[in-house]
Amino acid sequence: MEYSSKLLSEIVDEIAKLPGIGKRTALRLALYLLKQPEAQSEQLSQAIIRFRKEVKHCKICHNISDKDVCDICSDERRNHALVCVVEDIRDVMAIESTGEYNGVYHVLGGKISPIEGVGPADLTIEQLLQRIKNYQIDEIIFAMSATVDGDTTNFYLYRKISELPNSPGISTIARGIAVGEELEYADEITLARSILNRVPFEKSIKQNK
Amino acid sequence: MEYSSKLLSEIVDEIAKLPGIGKRTALRLALYLLKQPEAQSEQLSQAIIRFRKEVKHCKICHNISDKDVCDICSDERRNHALVCVVEDIRDVMAIESTGEYNGVYHVLGGKISPIEGVGPADLTIEQLLQRIKNYQIDEIIFAMSATVDGDTTNFYLYRKISELPNSPGISTIARGIAVGEELEYADEITLARSILNRVPFEKSIKQNK
Repeated sequence: MEYSSKLLSEIVDEIAKLPGIGKRTALRLALYLLKQPEAQSEQLSQAIIRFRKEVKHCKICHNISDKDVCDICSDERRNHALVCVVEDIRDVMAIESTGEYNGVYHVLGGKISPIEGVGPADLTIEQLLQRIKNYQIDEIIFAMSATVDGDTTNFYLYRKISELPNSPGISTIARGIAVGEELEYADEITLARSILNRVPFEKSIKQNK
Repeated sequence: MEYSSKLLSEIVDEIAKLPGIGKRTALRLALYLLKQPEAQSEQLSQAIIRFRKEVKHCKICHNISDKDVCDICSDERRNHALVCVVEDIRDVMAIESTGEYNGVYHVLGGKISPIEGVGPADLTIEQLLQRIKNYQIDEIIFAMSATVDGDTTNFYLYRKISELPNSPGISTIARGIAVGEELEYADEITLARSILNRVPFEKSIKQNK
């Protein structure tokens, strides 16, 4: 497509670099900004550059934070001996929104993926191992996606953590039938896992709200 | 949703102000930027602010341009007595890409829409009337969307232009069965229009490529 203005062509190209946004959508967004007050473009522009330049990561759990140590890691009421390992900040937000988890987190920043060229060194795995060495941690919970890459990451972490002298207990979040899901639509692997990892009925009753 | 960082919350809010982008997508885009080199965020940020602050509109046709008079309006090989009235720059690009139009344009900047609070004064209608008064224009082509708002705009323009002393001929683009479309799936109004506005067969053969 040819644009009637270099400035327009430039903004469309830059917006279209974002994942899931094509040139057509980028053009629509650019024209939208043109119809809004100049202040909106200024705020958007500044928010992008400030976020990219000034945002910090918590030096303990590597979650995004404005402080050196994030609110979760500095909360004394939480159980710091229980660490849930997740891929990124969205997983932290999802687990926090359940209101059922009282431990702390470790944000890997992704998962090991040979296809996408992500190796262990690209993630905060070394920092997790150091953290286990230096702090008293009783249990590590793996909460990775149930994908091939997630499993690869789980196995790699499991091996590395098991080699440590003070290796903590290691668990993974339960795979099974989603609440509200009908059995006949579940895939075989998930169904098999839900049978193998069955839970005492009285325990499950107490978890219903 | 609660974010672990004010900077993150800020960028998510700003991105989510864009049409068709929710908070979840905005968060995904922000995290994507964080993984890319800082230069990409800088370029995006600058492109937005430069576009918004520096972009000009052609003083003749009101299309987006880097110059006072756009490339189309300053092209002497084009027919400046034939003016196609469109809603916005995307329509100019769409018609240009057909390669079949040799006239010039007038970009209204939207259409009259009582529901969205867009009146004649919000568009470049007065400029179009001035343009007709001051230049020798033989024909005006209405190329608005075939919607209620598009029709409203057409009727308003038709009345205003007809009142002028040197009122040019007024036409609208043909409504009909799209090329490649099957008759049975066409709606009745479109089908009726395509019959009422039928074209001599020999003329239509010449238009096939």
